Amino acid sequence: MTPGEVVVSGVGHTRFGRLDGEGLESLVVEAVRAALADAAVPGGAVDAVFFGNFNAGMQPMAFGSSLALQADEGLLGVAATRVENACASGSAAVHQGIQAILAGAADTVLVVGAEKMTDSSPETVGRALLGADYDAAGTASRHGFAGLFAAVALEYQRRYGAIGDEMAWIAAKNHGNGLANPYAHLRRDLGFEFCRDVSDANPMVADPLRRTDCSPVSDGAAALVLQRGDLAARSLARIAGYSQSSDYLPAARRDPLAFEGTKAAVAQAFKMADRTLSDLAFAEVHDCFTIAELLVYEAIGLAGPGRAKDVVDAGITHKDGKLPVNPSGGLKSKGHPVGATGVSQHVLAALQLSGRAGDMQVPHAGVGLVHNMGGLAVANYATIMESV
Amino acid sequence: MTPGEVVVSGVGHTRFGRLDGEGLESLVVEAVRAALADAAVPGGAVDAVFFGNFNAGMQPMAFGSSLALQADEGLLGVAATRVENACASGSAAVHQGIQAILAGAADTVLVVGAEKMTDSSPETVGRALLGADYDAAGTASRHGFAGLFAAVALEYQRRYGAIGDEMAWIAAKNHGNGLANPYAHLRRDLGFEFCRDVSDANPMVADPLRRTDCSPVSDGAAALVLQRGDLAARSLARIAGYSQSSDYLPAARRDPLAFEGTKAAVAQAFKMADRTLSDLAFAEVHDCFTIAELLVYEAIGLAGPGRAKDVVDAGITHKDGKLPVNPSGGLKSKGHPVGATGVSQHVLAALQLSGRAGDMQVPHAGVGLVHNMGGLAVANYATIMESV
Repeated sequence: MTPGEVVVSGVGHTRFGRLDGEGLESLVVEAVRAALADAAVPGGAVDAVFFGNFNAGMQPMAFGSSLALQADEGLLGVAATRVENACASGSAAVHQGIQAILAGAADTVLVVGAEKMTDSSPETVGRALLGADYDAAGTASRHGFAGLFAAVALEYQRRYGAIGDEMAWIAAKNHGNGLANPYAHLRRDLGFEFCRDVSDANPMVADPLRRTDCSPVSDGAAALVLQRGDLAARSLARIAGYSQSSDYLPAARRDPLAFEGTKAAVAQAFKMADRTLSDLAFAEVHDCFTIAELLVYEAIGLAGPGRAKDVVDAGITHKDGKLPVNPSGGLKSKGHPVGATGVSQHVLAALQLSGRAGDMQVPHAGVGLVHNMGGLAVANYATIMESV
Repeated sequence: MTPGEVVVSGVGHTRFGRLDGEGLESLVVEAVRAALADAAVPGGAVDAVFFGNFNAGMQPMAFGSSLALQADEGLLGVAATRVENACASGSAAVHQGIQAILAGAADTVLVVGAEKMTDSSPETVGRALLGADYDAAGTASRHGFAGLFAAVALEYQRRYGAIGDEMAWIAAKNHGNGLANPYAHLRRDLGFEFCRDVSDANPMVADPLRRTDCSPVSDGAAALVLQRGDLAARSLARIAGYSQSSDYLPAARRDPLAFEGTKAAVAQAFKMADRTLSDLAFAEVHDCFTIAELLVYEAIGLAGPGRAKDVVDAGITHKDGKLPVNPSGGLKSKGHPVGATGVSQHVLAALQLSGRAGDMQVPHAGVGLVHNMGGLAVANYATIMESV
């Protein structure tokens, strides 16, 4: 059996945002029920559940694999596993789901990713997120993860020159795209000038990252049903290629601008799918900070080292460009409920590839890339999905 | 490809115990290097790493999948994933490793489980462990997880009569067995009377559980190399069957004495392996508390409901009995570094099946069962392993 015989047969997605009154369980239940209904798959047909969740102290319940069973009586007895790879926990769940089917261990897999963040104080969230950094874990940091990516942006500027405008362009693009996304946390078309200029409404968070360069702290969940294509009642998209590559944890062992693990994962996924960059109709990539999306342009081969600004200047990744990147609005606009993010990216790709993306729809959506990473390109995932 | 074509080709195991001066990383590194050396597999041959780790606030670093890369330069670029299923996190890693090979995604998988617990205060450890309970997570509890299993023991006694002596017999058996285990945390043959009698040295922790009914808080790591049998230079054991079954999280939705998920997982693993209980030469089962081992006797079919005492009376599970259970000393004597436990169980089974178990060796070790669970029989794993 090949990855291409694994299909997405249904998707579910809660709103992302500050969702008062919702908890981790209610978010999981909502997304799971939506995905099962969308796939027209009864809970009893599910063989395995993979749950993407970071947590790291944001919720006292630290054993969430069986939360999905609260959604449907038919799920009792399923093989349910939580997987964690920091901000790529959602894609970890998707990829383990694919492997369970390829292994013959499951015909139907339910994948769900979720995070409930806004119950916690900013200090708790900051400490949890820094728990994904080898060097900063357990330390007090005024800027949290933004500080780490700010250092990357500074290093980029040191080597290659100013990128304040380019980062602002990415922010404005993704905010504009997010206006069309009914699930997005921030649905405001802020415009380039607002994103470029430091102001009371757009303060510097960690120089050179402005607030608009940072994805928000959000609650949310997303789910999808993976099935053997020959057993699925319908297919939204198929998995043409998937790959994962891990880099060293200590920052000193990585070139902060190279995103080597992302390069490797994307290259391997393309190879498995027998596709190249020019086949893509769109990409959903990991823009936790605008500098991350900029570096992904170079890592996936849209530009050489230090030349990401050429991509921006040519408008290639704009929704009307040659390769729309983050037509969903990305993490920047959607929000970044950590464990949900990777699943959400795959859900949105499936919607594009099945022509169900509504106002987000890109034309001729035949092949899409999902890229998701944990830490500073430590855990790297790439999936090539195709329409059926 | 069938599970029986997946073999364990090398194992590594740190000492379990209060390991001052060791951290999560150094434990992982020690176990990984030992397993790779034992398998004679270079790091560069490893395709995937699965890391079993619970954490839940015991360590500030919450993103441990890539820690294994610190052990060997050849591991750079590997697909590394952390899996978590509370106290069954280690078996979750083993089972995902098996599936990665069956999926054709990996020929060689490195599985490592680890936990560093003794850095934390008893309050932090207690809160972390209660994070594995839906109902008690986030609450203050004087007895922690012992209180939950004490309630199970009380319910058993209410239905079926006193089991203080039977639990003490299990404790004494496992302490006696642990004397032969060079990795064990508690290597003391305490004897039945000591375990039975409440004393200053053996106080009641949560009635009716005495200290000797509880596994200790420990640091430690264990690792193993899984390979396609046709590619392995040598094989210690093969995976004949494996299964996982999840039950509801809220206690009110489970019969506390039935261990339904354990029953299902064990039955499915036997079926896959085409084996029955009578084929087993030994079993390593999840005795986080002696009441758990007692209930496992009934769940795997050694006795009917309420009749576990017959197993004890007949000495069936003694090292010299018909079916030695926990010849390693079990969690009771070895210690229970949460994420390491499941991997350790599989390592010890592989040592038995390859005749390398030293003073722990049981005779005619052709087929063994590993049973590991997270929460009160919420996440349940069973593996049938065979000699080659």
